[in-house]
Amino acid sequence: MTVPHLTTALSGPLLDLERRILLAQPEIEHWLRNQWQESTPPFYGSVDLRNAGYKLAPVDMNLYPGGFNNLNPEFHPLGVQAVMTALESFCPDAKRLLLIPENHTRNTFYLQNVAALTRILKMAGLVVRLGTLNPEITEPTSFDLPDGQKLTLEPLVRNGRRLGVAGFDPCAVLLNNDLSAGIPPILEGIEQTLLPPLHAGWAVRRKTHHFAAYDHVANDFAKLIGIDPWTINPYFDHVDQLDFHARTGEERLADTVSQMLEKIRSKYKEHGIDHDPFVIVKANAGTYGMGVMSVKSADDVVGLNRKQRNKMSVIKEGLEVHDVIVQEGVPTFESINDAVAEPVVYMMDRFVVGGFYRVHTDRGPEENLNAPGMHFVPLGFASPCTTPDCDGEPDSAPNRFYAYGVVARLALLAAAHELEATAPAVHLSFAA
Amino acid sequence: MTVPHLTTALSGPLLDLERRILLAQPEIEHWLRNQWQESTPPFYGSVDLRNAGYKLAPVDMNLYPGGFNNLNPEFHPLGVQAVMTALESFCPDAKRLLLIPENHTRNTFYLQNVAALTRILKMAGLVVRLGTLNPEITEPTSFDLPDGQKLTLEPLVRNGRRLGVAGFDPCAVLLNNDLSAGIPPILEGIEQTLLPPLHAGWAVRRKTHHFAAYDHVANDFAKLIGIDPWTINPYFDHVDQLDFHARTGEERLADTVSQMLEKIRSKYKEHGIDHDPFVIVKANAGTYGMGVMSVKSADDVVGLNRKQRNKMSVIKEGLEVHDVIVQEGVPTFESINDAVAEPVVYMMDRFVVGGFYRVHTDRGPEENLNAPGMHFVPLGFASPCTTPDCDGEPDSAPNRFYAYGVVARLALLAAAHELEATAPAVHLSFAA
Repeated sequence: MTVPHLTTALSGPLLDLERRILLAQPEIEHWLRNQWQESTPPFYGSVDLRNAGYKLAPVDMNLYPGGFNNLNPEFHPLGVQAVMTALESFCPDAKRLLLIPENHTRNTFYLQNVAALTRILKMAGLVVRLGTLNPEITEPTSFDLPDGQKLTLEPLVRNGRRLGVAGFDPCAVLLNNDLSAGIPPILEGIEQTLLPPLHAGWAVRRKTHHFAAYDHVANDFAKLIGIDPWTINPYFDHVDQLDFHARTGEERLADTVSQMLEKIRSKYKEHGIDHDPFVIVKANAGTYGMGVMSVKSADDVVGLNRKQRNKMSVIKEGLEVHDVIVQEGVPTFESINDAVAEPVVYMMDRFVVGGFYRVHTDRGPEENLNAPGMHFVPLGFASPCTTPDCDGEPDSAPNRFYAYGVVARLALLAAAHELEATAPAVHLSFAA
Repeated sequence: MTVPHLTTALSGPLLDLERRILLAQPEIEHWLRNQWQESTPPFYGSVDLRNAGYKLAPVDMNLYPGGFNNLNPEFHPLGVQAVMTALESFCPDAKRLLLIPENHTRNTFYLQNVAALTRILKMAGLVVRLGTLNPEITEPTSFDLPDGQKLTLEPLVRNGRRLGVAGFDPCAVLLNNDLSAGIPPILEGIEQTLLPPLHAGWAVRRKTHHFAAYDHVANDFAKLIGIDPWTINPYFDHVDQLDFHARTGEERLADTVSQMLEKIRSKYKEHGIDHDPFVIVKANAGTYGMGVMSVKSADDVVGLNRKQRNKMSVIKEGLEVHDVIVQEGVPTFESINDAVAEPVVYMMDRFVVGGFYRVHTDRGPEENLNAPGMHFVPLGFASPCTTPDCDGEPDSAPNRFYAYGVVARLALLAAAHELEATAPAVHLSFAA
């Protein structure tokens, strides 16, 4: 696999950020190593990054990554090794693992992800079976994959405080289901190790909690390597008690958008960036790019037509949106064959294990690339993000990937803090 | 890089051993995971394996591996990740590392190993400098490598209980020097973390202690997967108080050889193996394949001529040999383009990070392939040994490599036990 071409049109400031990251590589790794002495990383996670040249920032942190099939298989051994390490910290005695995927069995892309993840878990030495929350699956059911493989999903069986499938009593349970529809009672109070914990699911989790935790991480990191934290951190704000159908809260949302656009404008001025600011309005809980809007003016969020209101008001599992995060829009300046490309970095335990580009030909650099019906082309990274070439140019591929891996791990660290803070009770301690 | 061709002439019993290893993969990984909860792996190590078809066994365990340049660079990220894990257990706060290589600065192959190892350590986030024990190097001295790189070796500086080089006070010291010439006083009693510990060097270490520890590991493992431990463990015995020049102990050595040949003959009979047994007589301390003899009869060790006696009596650094291990000879049945091939597996922390074949055109399948002047061709493994294909044939390349990785990790575990047992005092507790 050859290194994907990366445009470097806005070379100046980006090179500066990457150069600082590279120069500080030993300090960064030392600092991260110390952070992981204090905090336990989630079992796995993926981070959507946006690279604006002047800014390289995470815009979403997924704790139930669904694109393992998009990783370069040559890097699977990194995942195997990371799983071995994760098992040591979470459940060293585990032999049998139950993997619970999402319910959408008709999405073969997703099923291929489950197959790739299962393969990595098996290579790490686990006996893996797939249990499903899907009520339509009442007996072991096989699904054919495009590459000729088969996946068998089995209905979950609960015995007292133990969860399993018929004839299989697992030592640990791994969710690849983000619990958007709420926490199913069958998962509650089980005695096996459950990864990630239930409060990592979108039934409880909020993007604003994550980015509040990320604020602290980004500030500490920026101090460490002497950069403006804004260059790795998008502004965000929180608007709740919205009702898009009843048009409740529209004005509050518009004010928040307007204030944020002003803040971005002033940062652009400070850094000499000639760009029109924009913000992203997203459901505070949820994924799959549903309930997402890109706006350039406060007017864009008042007087939405019915179609727009419908789009914003419903996310996955038909849930209504009353609570949004308003996030600074970070344009992407990377493209591959004229198509906009957004890097996604995959991590297991504290390690970067690969990544890919979402390459999209129909969307502009300011749009959300993770949207329903969005047929992105995955392009596996040519580098595992862990092999900086200290003697190479800052914009050489291994070094750009290293910078991605660093910023992704900052988001992972924020997720660890977020999960710690939200762990003891469902009431959350981050003020957003 | 394509998968090297592997002959499978003696397919039966080998396939059986590999099939058992593959079938038991989850049990094996679980068992190893538990072992590493009790024992700390050495920082790094390499294992020479011999594959006889009916037997797959380690014949040497090196705690100062010198062939990192022979690994497939595509697997370097595995080393980077393993070093990150090792640092967490040995010295999480380490930023600066001093690497002390062997003294032979004229061996460019070895210097390339130092360069490759340094690169992995740097990618893991360490600031690395090279300090040398070589008295000829009295100021920082650069050496050119064939690929255009440079290595700079600096004289060691001792300040009280701290070791470093001028202007560099490291947090940890890593030896890639096996201390065959004894423990230099400058290394004694330093307060920094020293890896591996001094008693891992050949000044203290004995092969018989390693293989005594391996006996236990091999027995436990054989019980786990239900095999005859002999299929993964060569017989060994110990003969000391030898003087090859004075011909003292010749008869004792001959008796030991003769008894071992008899034991092997009886095992061959039990397993229906049609092969002439042979044994290897090696210096009990030392490396680089010096002081090694392959013998097929007790007569081969009595009445050695002067040349043979000279060859056996002196190893690296001109040390005299008075103490040998007599080890069951394991023929290799692997060949690449008609040349005999011996696999060498590399590990960092508890992880397999790659390997290569020593491919030798001049030597027979029963000879030692690690000999002075032996210009082996290194052929990097095409698989990282961690990606078993449970649905594939037992003799498919990933599975064969997986079996290599398992047996190599058994030797690594034995090294951990060996180092524990020899740690508290220089007096050793293994009876061999």
